Amino acid sequence: MRLQVRARLAGMTSRVAVAGASGYAGGEVLRLLLGHPEVEIGALTAGSNAGSRLGEHHPHLTPLADRVLGETTQEVLAGHDVVFLGLPHGASAEVAAQLGDDVLIVDCGADFRLTDSQAWQTFYGGEHAGSWPYGLPELPGQRERLAGVNRIAAPGCFPTVSTLSILPAVGAGLVDPDVVVVAATGTSGAGRSLKPHLLGAEVMGQASVYGVGGVHRHTPEIEQNLALTGADGVRVSFTPILAPMSRGILATVSAPARPGVDADDLRAAYAKAYDDEPFVHLLPEGQWPQTKGVLGSNCVHVQAALDERVGRVVAVGAIDNLTKGTAGTAIQSMNLALGLPEGLGLPVAGVAP
Amino acid sequence: MRLQVRARLAGMTSRVAVAGASGYAGGEVLRLLLGHPEVEIGALTAGSNAGSRLGEHHPHLTPLADRVLGETTQEVLAGHDVVFLGLPHGASAEVAAQLGDDVLIVDCGADFRLTDSQAWQTFYGGEHAGSWPYGLPELPGQRERLAGVNRIAAPGCFPTVSTLSILPAVGAGLVDPDVVVVAATGTSGAGRSLKPHLLGAEVMGQASVYGVGGVHRHTPEIEQNLALTGADGVRVSFTPILAPMSRGILATVSAPARPGVDADDLRAAYAKAYDDEPFVHLLPEGQWPQTKGVLGSNCVHVQAALDERVGRVVAVGAIDNLTKGTAGTAIQSMNLALGLPEGLGLPVAGVAP
Amino acid sequence: MRLQVRARLAGMTSRVAVAGASGYAGGEVLRLLLGHPEVEIGALTAGSNAGSRLGEHHPHLTPLADRVLGETTQEVLAGHDVVFLGLPHGASAEVAAQLGDDVLIVDCGADFRLTDSQAWQTFYGGEHAGSWPYGLPELPGQRERLAGVNRIAAPGCFPTVSTLSILPAVGAGLVDPDVVVVAATGTSGAGRSLKPHLLGAEVMGQASVYGVGGVHRHTPEIEQNLALTGADGVRVSFTPILAPMSRGILATVSAPARPGVDADDLRAAYAKAYDDEPFVHLLPEGQWPQTKGVLGSNCVHVQAALDERVGRVVAVGAIDNLTKGTAGTAIQSMNLALGLPEGLGLPVAGVAP
Amino acid sequence: MRLQVRARLAGMTSRVAVAGASGYAGGEVLRLLLGHPEVEIGALTAGSNAGSRLGEHHPHLTPLADRVLGETTQEVLAGHDVVFLGLPHGASAEVAAQLGDDVLIVDCGADFRLTDSQAWQTFYGGEHAGSWPYGLPELPGQRERLAGVNRIAAPGCFPTVSTLSILPAVGAGLVDPDVVVVAATGTSGAGRSLKPHLLGAEVMGQASVYGVGGVHRHTPEIEQNLALTGADGVRVSFTPILAPMSRGILATVSAPARPGVDADDLRAAYAKAYDDEPFVHLLPEGQWPQTKGVLGSNCVHVQAALDERVGRVVAVGAIDNLTKGTAGTAIQSMNLALGLPEGLGLPVAGVAP
Repeated sequence: MRLQVRARLAGMTSRVAVAGASGYAGGEVLRLLLGHPEVEIGALTAGSNAGSRLGEHHPHLTPLADRVLGETTQEVLAGHDVVFLGLPHGASAEVAAQLGDDVLIVDCGADFRLTDSQAWQTFYGGEHAGSWPYGLPELPGQRERLAGVNRIAAPGCFPTVSTLSILPAVGAGLVDPDVVVVAATGTSGAGRSLKPHLLGAEVMGQASVYGVGGVHRHTPEIEQNLALTGADGVRVSFTPILAPMSRGILATVSAPARPGVDADDLRAAYAKAYDDEPFVHLLPEGQWPQTKGVLGSNCVHVQAALDERVGRVVAVGAIDNLTKGTAGTAIQSMNLALGLPEGLGLPVAGVAP
Repeated sequence: MRLQVRARLAGMTSRVAVAGASGYAGGEVLRLLLGHPEVEIGALTAGSNAGSRLGEHHPHLTPLADRVLGETTQEVLAGHDVVFLGLPHGASAEVAAQLGDDVLIVDCGADFRLTDSQAWQTFYGGEHAGSWPYGLPELPGQRERLAGVNRIAAPGCFPTVSTLSILPAVGAGLVDPDVVVVAATGTSGAGRSLKPHLLGAEVMGQASVYGVGGVHRHTPEIEQNLALTGADGVRVSFTPILAPMSRGILATVSAPARPGVDADDLRAAYAKAYDDEPFVHLLPEGQWPQTKGVLGSNCVHVQAALDERVGRVVAVGAIDNLTKGTAGTAIQSMNLALGLPEGLGLPVAGVAP
Repeated sequence: MRLQVRARLAGMTSRVAVAGASGYAGGEVLRLLLGHPEVEIGALTAGSNAGSRLGEHHPHLTPLADRVLGETTQEVLAGHDVVFLGLPHGASAEVAAQLGDDVLIVDCGADFRLTDSQAWQTFYGGEHAGSWPYGLPELPGQRERLAGVNRIAAPGCFPTVSTLSILPAVGAGLVDPDVVVVAATGTSGAGRSLKPHLLGAEVMGQASVYGVGGVHRHTPEIEQNLALTGADGVRVSFTPILAPMSRGILATVSAPARPGVDADDLRAAYAKAYDDEPFVHLLPEGQWPQTKGVLGSNCVHVQAALDERVGRVVAVGAIDNLTKGTAGTAIQSMNLALGLPEGLGLPVAGVAP
Repeated sequence: MRLQVRARLAGMTSRVAVAGASGYAGGEVLRLLLGHPEVEIGALTAGSNAGSRLGEHHPHLTPLADRVLGETTQEVLAGHDVVFLGLPHGASAEVAAQLGDDVLIVDCGADFRLTDSQAWQTFYGGEHAGSWPYGLPELPGQRERLAGVNRIAAPGCFPTVSTLSILPAVGAGLVDPDVVVVAATGTSGAGRSLKPHLLGAEVMGQASVYGVGGVHRHTPEIEQNLALTGADGVRVSFTPILAPMSRGILATVSAPARPGVDADDLRAAYAKAYDDEPFVHLLPEGQWPQTKGVLGSNCVHVQAALDERVGRVVAVGAIDNLTKGTAGTAIQSMNLALGLPEGLGLPVAGVAP
C-alpha cells in the first residue's frame, strides 16, 4: 500500500519512466502522461534507438522532442515511482526483477497477462513467466483488485475490445459462450517492426487477415476474460483483419442467443453493465461504433443487436488500440494502483474526423 | 439461342450499351469492355449526368473521355446486342421491358437476384420484380444455365465472395450450414451516392459497421446460393465492415465443423471444387487472401483452415467488389450467354501494390 | 476591455456557444473547449442538422453526445460570453450584428479576413463585409492587437501554415517576396460538404489539385500576411493539392534567395523568429515537418533550407488544418482577447502514429 | 539492328527475363508483360528472395504465382531476347556486361540515366557508369533514337511526369526555364525497402517531405530532359512529397511566364506538343489531372494555366509511378527498340475509383 499512500499525499507527483519509449506503445504512454496532472516524466529508454532524440521517433511529442533516449538498464530506470514497459516479447521479467517491489511496474507486453500456463504453452510456447494483476478495470471485481498493486499487466488490444463488446451478454447468460470474433485493426497494432507486409505501399488500399484458424495469441486472453463472468465452456474463434488505417480496432463479436432472449433483455444487460462505467459508452439504439468515435480517447463504444431470424447476438465495439487498447488502460490501471482518480489524465473525447 | 449463334459467327462483334455509365458499376463495365476483343462500345447513358462528358466522371477511361452521356431511354439504348444496366434500385424492370427479348440485358442491380418473393419482401420490401438467371458461373450447374440466356442478374458483391469462400465446405457437408460472415469492403461498394458517412474525411483512417443484426439485403442472397448445394437449413449471419479503401472485399466466413472432419478433408474439398475454375484461386497452404491480390482482376482468392480447438472452419475470400464483385462477373456471364470463351477480356492479374 | 476584465476575475469561466456545431470546424472547436479549464460549453446550433443529437455527427465528442443542436438564432445564442461561428460563406455578418458588442465573436469563416476590398472582389466577388482583428498571434504585433477585442477573424488554414513557413525569410529580407506555395491538405479542409469529388472512394489512394492558376481564395490572405513584414511587392503563386488523408496540411513554400544569403543567415532568421513562440517549433537541422507531427495539436512545425545551386530558399511547414489551422488558432486568439494565458486548453502534443 | 529485325518476323515472340522480380518495379513489368501479345515470360530472378514463389511477393500476379525465383546470375539470365533489370543502385552495370550485346537490356534503375558525369558526381557520388539511350519516347527526337537499340535506361518516375508537364512551355519559350517542381508521390516509389518511415502506420493519414533543398537525385535528370528543348540555363528546384497512397505521382510544375505570353499561346503549345502523342493526354480546359485518372495505365494526364496576376505558368501532370513512371515506359521503349508497335501491351485505361 505504500505506493498508494504516497500518491495520495497532497501535491505529490509520481516520477514515471518509460522503457521502450521509441515504440508505439511507449509513445502513446508519453502522449497521455504529458496531459496527466500528477506525474513527472523521468527517464526514457530504448533498445537500438538509445542515444537518439525522442523527436526523431515521435515528432508529435513536441514538448519532449529534445529528450535523449537512455539504455534500458537498472541504473537508468532506478529512482522512479512508476515504470512503464513497452519491451519486446519476453524481456519484461528481467527488467522487473531488477527494479524491486516498491516500484509500480506496468507492462504493456503480453508476458504476464495469462494465468493459465497451459494456454501460455499452447499459444506462446516457451516458459510461462507468471501472471500479474490484469489491467482491465471493467472486468468483474477487477477495479478493486488493482488498488495498491505494484505490478500490472496491461491487456492486449484485441482482448480489451472483444471482451467488453460481449461481456454483458455472456455475463447475463443471454448467449452460449461460443463466441466468434472478427476484428479489424489499424497497423500500429503490429508495433514498429520492419516487416515487408507492414510497409505502407502494401497496407494502403487493402485488407488482409493473419493468424487465422485459432492461432492468434490474443485468443486465450479473451477466453480468460469472459470466463470471469462464471460462464462455463467459453470458446472463442478469433480472426484479425489488418485494415488500412494507423489506429483503431473495430470488433464484431457474435454468439448464439439462448432461447427466449429478446432485444429488450439484451439492451437491459448492456445498460446495466455499462451505465456507470466511465469509459465504456453504450451508444443509443441504432447507432453503431466506428473507430473514429474513439481515436485518441480512452473510451470504448459498444452496441449490440439480436438477429432473431438466425438466433444470434451480434455486438460491436470500437477502441483506439494504442489508447484504451494499450497506454490508456495502462494509465487507468496506474491511477487505480496509486489511489488517484481513475480517469485522471485520460482523454474522453477523440480526435476526428 | 439467337444471341449465342450470332456471336459465334466469325469476326462478328457485339455492340454493347451501358446504362448508368457515370456510376462505379458502369465505369468498371466500361474499363473491362475496353479490353474485350469481341465488343464494340455503343451508347452510354446516365441519369442526372446525361449531357456531360464521360471523362468528367471517369477520368481513368481516357479512350472514352470525350464520349457524351445520353439519356437512359428506349431510343438511345435501341440497336445494341447487349445492354448493361447500372441503375438505381427498382429501375431495371421498366428499361428491360422496353428493350425486348432479342437483347441480352445484364443487370448489375439487385432487382432480379432473389428467387424467393418472401425473402425479397423481408429484406427489400415492396413488390418482387421476379428473378433472372443468376450470373455466378461458379455455382453448381450455373455455368450451363447461363448459355444462351437473354437476361442475367449479376450477383451482389458480398454474396459472390461469401458464397465462394465457404461453398466447398458446405457442399461437401464438412460444416453445419450455420454460417457467420464478417466482410470488410471498400467504400465504392456503396456506389457514388452523396451521403455524409461516405465522405473521404469520414471514411479515411477508420472502420465502421452498417446493416448489423441480420438486416443487410445481401444476406438472403448468400443463403440462396449456399442452398444450391443441397444443404438444408442454411442460415447466415452477415455483418459488413466499411474499411478505408476504395475497392476490394475481404470476407471471413466461418461455420461449425462437423464431427470427425479434419484439415485434409477440408483442403481436399476446396481443391476439388476449385482446381478447374478459371477465376477462383485456392492459395497454397499457409497463404491467406488479401484484397490487393485481386484488385482490378476478375479472380477470387480463397483459403480455409480448421480450428480444431473450438471446432470451427474459418474460410477467407478476397475479391475486387467492382470487378469479380460486379462488372467482371457480369461480363463473364455475358461471355457464357453469347457463347464466347468464358474468360474473354477479363483480367487475371491484379494491380498492386 | 470589459470582456478581458471579466475573464480575469478569479474562478470566473466564460460561457461559450458554437454555431455550426455539426461541421468540422465546429466539432474541433468543441473538442478543444472540452479540455479548456476556463470555459463552460453552452448552446450548440446547426443549420439543417438542428434538432439532432451532436453524437450523430461527432461520435468522438462522447461527453457531449446527447446534446441536442438548436437553431442558429439570436435567442439561442444570447447570454453567452463567447460565440464561435462555423457558418457557410457570407452568413457571419448577420449573426454578429444580432449578438451585439459585448460578446466576443470568433468567426472561423472567411468573411472578415481580408482588409483589402479590391482583393475581396477579385477572389470572392460580391460585397466585402469588412475586416475583423485577424486571429494569427504569430504575425508581427498581432498578439498585442488581439488583447481585449470583441471580434476575431480566424485565419484560413492554408494562409496560417504558408505564412508561418516563409515569414522569417521574408521578414529578414533573405528572399524576394515572389513566393511559390504548393500545399497538400487533408480533405476535411473542404468541410462536410456533399460533393462527388470528396467521396471516400474518390479521394482514397489518389492526389488531385484544385483552384490552380492563381484563383484560390486563400491567395490574397497569404499576401496580406507577408506584407505585414513590410516587404514590398509580395506575390504568391498558390496551388493546393488534395491528399488522401482526413487532416493536416504540409506546405512547401519557396522563394528566390537574395544574393549573398547563406544557410546560417537562414537558420538564424528562423531561430530568432520562433524561439519564443509557444506553438511554432523550428525543427532541428535535417529534420523536416510531417503532418503527423502536429495532428490534433496546435503546433506548427517548420524547417527551411537554402538550395544554393539554384538560388532558392525552400521552407516547409506542417499544421493540423482543423486545430492550428482553424479551431486552435481561434481559441488561442480567444484566450488573448479574454486576457487568459495564450496557450490555455490547447494541446501541444499531437496524436500519432 | 538484329534485335529489331528478329521481332519483326511474323509470329516470333521475344523471350523476356526479369531480374529483381520480387520488387515493385519487377512486379509491374511482369503485370504488363502478362498482357503483352509478343513476349514470353522467361526467367524471374531475385536477390535475397531467390528460391521463393513469386506469389508470396506479388499475390496479384495470379498466373505466375507458382513461378520460383532464381538467382540473378549470368546462367539464369542467358538465352533471353530481353532482360529487364530492377536491381539495387549500382548493380546493373555488372549484370549488363555479363549478358552481351545481342540482348536488349532495359534498366529500371538510375545507373545509366545521366549523361553528365559532373551531375552524377554531385547528386549520386561515386563512379559514373556511363549513359544508355534514355527511355522517354516523348522527348524531342527520342522516339527515333530508341529504334533498334540494345540498351535502355528507363527514366525516373519524377523526371517523367515533371518533364512532360512543363516541356511544351519550355520548348516553346513561353517561360523562363527556372522551374519549381513540387510533386506528391505514392510510397511505392521508394521501393520495397524496410525503412521505418515507410511503415504503413507512419505513412497513412499523413504527408511528409524528403530530399528537400536541391538534393534529390532526380533533379539533374529533369534538367537534362528540359535542356533537350534547346533552352539555356535550365534550373530546377525539386521537392518531393510523400503522400499516403501506394501509387501515383501528381506533379505541380511552375515557371515565370515570359512577357506577352497569354493563355492561348500556352494552350496552343501544349496541344501542338501532345495532340499526336499516344500516351500523353492534354485534358480539356478546366479539368485538372488526378492520379486516379492514370493508375495502372501508361497515360500521362497534363493541364496548364497562366496565372496572369503573378506572371507564372502552372502546369500539373499525373502518372502512375510504377506504370508510365517505370515499367510502362520501359516496355514502351522496348517496343520501339524491337520494332514493335509502340503501344503494344500497354494499358490506356486506368483502374478507378
